Amino acid sequence: MKQVESSKKYVSKAVPQTQVDFEYDGPCMKTSVPGPRSQNVGAINFFCNYEESRGNYLVDVDGNRMLDVYTQISSIPIGYNHPALLKLMSNPNNLSTFVNRPALGILPPETFPDTLTDSLLSVAPSGMTRVQTMACGSCSNENAYKAMFIWYKNKERGHNTPSDEDVSTCMVNQAPGCPDLSIMSFMGAFHGRTLGCLATTHSKAIHKLDVPSFDWPIAPFPRLRYPLEQFTRENAQEEARCLEEVEDLIVKWRQKGKPVAGIVIEPIQAEGGDNHASPNFFRSLRNIARKHGCAFHVDEVQTGGGCTGKFWAHEHWGMDDPADIVSFSKKLLTGGYYHKDELQADKAYRIFNTWMGDPSKNLFLSEVLNVIRRESLLEEVARSGRALLNGLYELQVCIRKRATSFTIIYPSILTGSGRARGQGTFCAIDVCDDATRTSILLKARNKGILLGGCGERSIRFRPALIFKEYHVHLFLNIFNDILAKHK
Amino acid sequence: MKQVESSKKYVSKAVPQTQVDFEYDGPCMKTSVPGPRSQNVGAINFFCNYEESRGNYLVDVDGNRMLDVYTQISSIPIGYNHPALLKLMSNPNNLSTFVNRPALGILPPETFPDTLTDSLLSVAPSGMTRVQTMACGSCSNENAYKAMFIWYKNKERGHNTPSDEDVSTCMVNQAPGCPDLSIMSFMGAFHGRTLGCLATTHSKAIHKLDVPSFDWPIAPFPRLRYPLEQFTRENAQEEARCLEEVEDLIVKWRQKGKPVAGIVIEPIQAEGGDNHASPNFFRSLRNIARKHGCAFHVDEVQTGGGCTGKFWAHEHWGMDDPADIVSFSKKLLTGGYYHKDELQADKAYRIFNTWMGDPSKNLFLSEVLNVIRRESLLEEVARSGRALLNGLYELQVCIRKRATSFTIIYPSILTGSGRARGQGTFCAIDVCDDATRTSILLKARNKGILLGGCGERSIRFRPALIFKEYHVHLFLNIFNDILAKHK
Repeated sequence: MKQVESSKKYVSKAVPQTQVDFEYDGPCMKTSVPGPRSQNVGAINFFCNYEESRGNYLVDVDGNRMLDVYTQISSIPIGYNHPALLKLMSNPNNLSTFVNRPALGILPPETFPDTLTDSLLSVAPSGMTRVQTMACGSCSNENAYKAMFIWYKNKERGHNTPSDEDVSTCMVNQAPGCPDLSIMSFMGAFHGRTLGCLATTHSKAIHKLDVPSFDWPIAPFPRLRYPLEQFTRENAQEEARCLEEVEDLIVKWRQKGKPVAGIVIEPIQAEGGDNHASPNFFRSLRNIARKHGCAFHVDEVQTGGGCTGKFWAHEHWGMDDPADIVSFSKKLLTGGYYHKDELQADKAYRIFNTWMGDPSKNLFLSEVLNVIRRESLLEEVARSGRALLNGLYELQVCIRKRATSFTIIYPSILTGSGRARGQGTFCAIDVCDDATRTSILLKARNKGILLGGCGERSIRFRPALIFKEYHVHLFLNIFNDILAKHK
Repeated sequence: MKQVESSKKYVSKAVPQTQVDFEYDGPCMKTSVPGPRSQNVGAINFFCNYEESRGNYLVDVDGNRMLDVYTQISSIPIGYNHPALLKLMSNPNNLSTFVNRPALGILPPETFPDTLTDSLLSVAPSGMTRVQTMACGSCSNENAYKAMFIWYKNKERGHNTPSDEDVSTCMVNQAPGCPDLSIMSFMGAFHGRTLGCLATTHSKAIHKLDVPSFDWPIAPFPRLRYPLEQFTRENAQEEARCLEEVEDLIVKWRQKGKPVAGIVIEPIQAEGGDNHASPNFFRSLRNIARKHGCAFHVDEVQTGGGCTGKFWAHEHWGMDDPADIVSFSKKLLTGGYYHKDELQADKAYRIFNTWMGDPSKNLFLSEVLNVIRRESLLEEVARSGRALLNGLYELQVCIRKRATSFTIIYPSILTGSGRARGQGTFCAIDVCDDATRTSILLKARNKGILLGGCGERSIRFRPALIFKEYHVHLFLNIFNDILAKHK
């Protein structure tokens, strides 16, 4: 199949210096990556010079400067060395927060309630007024699961007082004190790698192999066909099939004596391959959870923080009461979860650990939220996201036109079924196979573009919230060249 | 029973100002605690003013200044606002480490290998050259368990290549891919609260109630009788009984089809009540693990970092090859675990998460280790620990002398069996019951002494490494008064 180079080049209007005024003007490559000064060990890609990194640009130890469209697995909210964050560090009033990490659950700093109000509570999901901080995404989900188990069991008891048998059996891991409750998850999901989380993670075998797990129900996640507008009916049927299976599994696991205390789901399955479902699917799922008395836990660890163009991806569902629990981490800089009042553990020390988060991260988050508001970054993300997704659409048009047009490009590399997809800049595109993906990711890196993979053969885009339209164009031009020259 | 006030007062020699030259000269109480400015919610004791806290003194929002003998659940290594740590914050070269948190597993900072060498690797336990950082204690243990499962399963296979069945079954939580392996733990143990850790935690019901668990073997931890020198034979028998049970359980769980991949134990059971066992017990246990092909995991999350007078509590066992895995957190400021070469996961991404620690914590740790060395804090801890333990011995002497001597004190409060115990400043004493303990802890707090409880009726002492002999005397004088006046 002949490949024709596209001559299309994206040209951005002159960019006001103030837009991302602390960063570089483009990639700058001195060696292939990893370069001579990066040792390559295990999963390590290369070593970085974070001091020299700026905004959307990550600099490595060999002085290579790359446009970062992956941002430390989607965990850098407003780019590297943002002046607002550096300024915060230079304020002597903040030093104590870094130097004296408290046991937050028992001895919080005087200012912590205000810090929470300014940071996490100012962006609380609809219907949620409580938040519990944790140190990372896995701990957030682990503790969210525990909150659901405690809530479910108290509901089942009808009161909060465990029996003597509950108390004695739980000490030796046995029922009824350690009950056979379950959390329902979805094929392709990723919720973390600690043992509780891992029992709900089903994205890659390498994550789960050799680790004991729980017999918990796993529902199918819809496999939508693209382009969406062409497969409306099929996709609606697919979602209905999955929802039906969800209800069947709830009933089946109740009959097995392992009732489903909670259902956990990502608004977009990220690690599993950027799998989307419709707002209608999530609304129906939320209703099924309510109908069967299961808590509904939305895991926004990767989707939260603004990258979909709304602060929370679940806001796209348009619901007043989207969830009972919403967990977060990554771009929020601290882990944790929001929850409804009734998911508050009934006694102190049931949800607890030594640190329970880190107030210095909340300090950074407050400032990140200020920047997001001041610079209208959610609108910027929506705009950049449209440019990115349109660019991806153009890259993959169109195998069907190949006989008649010069716009045919890269049919053997990109899958022809139009699977370019995304919300905000949280976008992905599929490549024909894993080997081709690896090759493209490495070529992109050597051209100064850092990308990530997900699922079996997807490339995922996870830029910072300060990734502007001109960064999109810069990326698309380089990516275009790579695909054109790919053999 | 008549209580006679002790007239003994500890008098410290004049203290050179340089010893802890940045702290206060004693407690200073303005209100009872929690004071009017502390709201009391759930487990929260009171709100703190960390800016004003110094060295061994924690200041609350009402201006009360307390000698901190609990240090944020044993997690503050060298006191509050140590000048060395504040200085580190003022170095502009370090700012980037705080502002740009990397995905350490794939994109570490250029300086990270050196930082590890200067910090964690410089205090590696005997026989260990590898360390894996994690964000907190629970994540450290969860991942240590995974490393043991992976190691055990590869050993069982005889190679590292999973079968197709392994790969397909693990995706849906089923054996053989998710095998029925187990971790052996001990009654009274505390290893964390995430679901994997929680299956090995058996200290308090409130930690475990309503959370599903694994059917893993739980061995008895020796219940030593005090004073130790009086019960040498009985205690040796008790330890032999526990070791026998360990071997029986290993065999039994192998027969049940749930082989023990690893044994996890604390050198001193902390949360469970400061339960000690002899070096001989641990040496025998380590040999049993080796004999049966189980990995041996020493959890030093609370005992590590110098508080026992050696950097690791297991150094008191006097072994060249004490463990296969040693986990840490708290005073180390970062979580993580050391492991032997063969416990290294065979493929990238098997032990992995987004952050895998936080380099800014390693930066602090390097400086903490400098201070420990420069100020010979391990020797200081040994000295303060002797003074503390001797003081506790004196407080509890001696119900047996009560008919003949004026040294009879507090027989109805402190248990008469001589259970004052400890290593370094990691000490504890038993009180007659939980209600009395609560009352004593509150009275001590109102007199400016912060203590913690553990087990059913123990008071635990967890001062910082800069807790000197004169702090011990200051504490003992106040504690003495409280016990004398206790009704």
